[in-house]
Amino acid sequence: MKRFEIVPNFSEGRRPEVLEALYRSYSDAHGVVLLDHEADPDHNRCVLTAVGSAEDLIEATIAACKVALREIDLNHHQGEHPRIGALDVLPFLPLDGATMEDAVAAAHQLGERLWRELQVPVYYYEEASLGARKLLPAIRKGNYEGLREIVRDDPSRRPDVGGPELHPTFGASVIGARRPLVAFNVYLRTLDLEIAKRVAKAVRESSGGLRNVRALAIDTSAQGAVQVSMNLVDVEATPIHRAYEFVEREAAHYGIAVSHAEIVGLVPLSAMLAVAERSLRLQGFDASQVLEVRLMQEAEKS
Amino acid sequence: MKRFEIVPNFSEGRRPEVLEALYRSYSDAHGVVLLDHEADPDHNRCVLTAVGSAEDLIEATIAACKVALREIDLNHHQGEHPRIGALDVLPFLPLDGATMEDAVAAAHQLGERLWRELQVPVYYYEEASLGARKLLPAIRKGNYEGLREIVRDDPSRRPDVGGPELHPTFGASVIGARRPLVAFNVYLRTLDLEIAKRVAKAVRESSGGLRNVRALAIDTSAQGAVQVSMNLVDVEATPIHRAYEFVEREAAHYGIAVSHAEIVGLVPLSAMLAVAERSLRLQGFDASQVLEVRLMQEAEKS
Repeated sequence: MKRFEIVPNFSEGRRPEVLEALYRSYSDAHGVVLLDHEADPDHNRCVLTAVGSAEDLIEATIAACKVALREIDLNHHQGEHPRIGALDVLPFLPLDGATMEDAVAAAHQLGERLWRELQVPVYYYEEASLGARKLLPAIRKGNYEGLREIVRDDPSRRPDVGGPELHPTFGASVIGARRPLVAFNVYLRTLDLEIAKRVAKAVRESSGGLRNVRALAIDTSAQGAVQVSMNLVDVEATPIHRAYEFVEREAAHYGIAVSHAEIVGLVPLSAMLAVAERSLRLQGFDASQVLEVRLMQEAEKS
Repeated sequence: MKRFEIVPNFSEGRRPEVLEALYRSYSDAHGVVLLDHEADPDHNRCVLTAVGSAEDLIEATIAACKVALREIDLNHHQGEHPRIGALDVLPFLPLDGATMEDAVAAAHQLGERLWRELQVPVYYYEEASLGARKLLPAIRKGNYEGLREIVRDDPSRRPDVGGPELHPTFGASVIGARRPLVAFNVYLRTLDLEIAKRVAKAVRESSGGLRNVRALAIDTSAQGAVQVSMNLVDVEATPIHRAYEFVEREAAHYGIAVSHAEIVGLVPLSAMLAVAERSLRLQGFDASQVLEVRLMQEAEKS
């Protein structure tokens, strides 16, 4: 079965009964596993993580959006986080046998249904983008309050599906497809933040480092070490060990050793196995040699 | 749920319809996954790998032994492999939340039932052993033909459950508990088998090396490298990377580098994650951060 992870962001982070109804749209849905949910009252926003087939995830999201349509009015929404809609953002991440093309197709299906069934206009972002407009901040610029005016005058800012006006209370949604992202932090045995900054600059793609790596230096010197905080946005192309070894080598250039590292949140199994394979110089290793993977495969067969 | 892997060895490797009936005893059993089965006509023996709860695996094994009781007569059995019974050997390996004590309890339950229900006497080995007699070769010494005479005169060779005589056609079974074993081979960039022999001698427990490691040198020089072939019998206590790093260091002492390595057959997920954690110096990592593991855990909850 082709499965996806989705990370819906709704513009509600305060009213427990609304949050509960949004969560239940996923946790009670057929074939959907709600892995995580977190509400931030300052942002007035909640972020969910759910896994399932494209079909089941889309059904659950339509149900959740009906709750949002009833309960959330962007004209009265206040919160620190940028947003243009009641369902503000939702990316599809391909898992298991699913490809990026499958994730893009799922995003487009959801977009069509949001407009057709709920009259919510949709923007596509990242891999699901239809044209040059790919990045979330550019799409969301002006927030709900600004964007609802801008679309009247500027055709380049209008939704990809539906519109051109935003929904009068729901706003619009940004639906997309991207790879799972791994949050990977490496701590350097120094209190000198400057060194972490130089290493971060050397490793990140934007300043000429490794492809698919975003990096920042964080002052964690109170813990006795400074942090190079990374987001690895494509661990298939640029594996975790490549980022680790790069940071280790770069820090050594300044005479500094790595203290330890951490992975924050979820990581795909294939990414962890790739690290082990690298480190043991394994040849011909297949994930189905992992007992638990074999058992999952057998369970899916039956 | 506490689950176990079992590796039953039956003294039949030639008659397809008997093999089929043995396999089906597991593949058709409630709650049992038959992961693998292999028959060797020269050994006249088959080896199965199955996973399930202790209860389900014991039920399936009793069913398979009824087939063996009907179809296999040790008095007419010929084959190269040492054996004393129709079900010759069966170890329980603890998986998931199961402990070695659970595996020993399961082995003893099966032993009691084999004697009570089928009048098959049982020897216990490895962790399930009741006394000093722990190792398979010592229990099986003399084979069926010799042992059925020996038990008459030598009380120290008699079964742990039932007997003292062996079953007139089935013989006796050796039931035990042990940890999953990882077959791990490291190839050295030399054609000199002598170096592989020295490294194998240095790394193996029996000659003063690493605990829980058995090692042999194998002449694979036709492939351009010689092999240090290892069985890691407790990867929780002595992880794969410790064996790898030991071999690498030892080979470097002779000026030889590691070419590559391989894992033969199954490996527990925790053993692979431990290698990745070591290699990335991860702190605070938990297996439930692996997306697929989280999904399994959620599936078990519901």
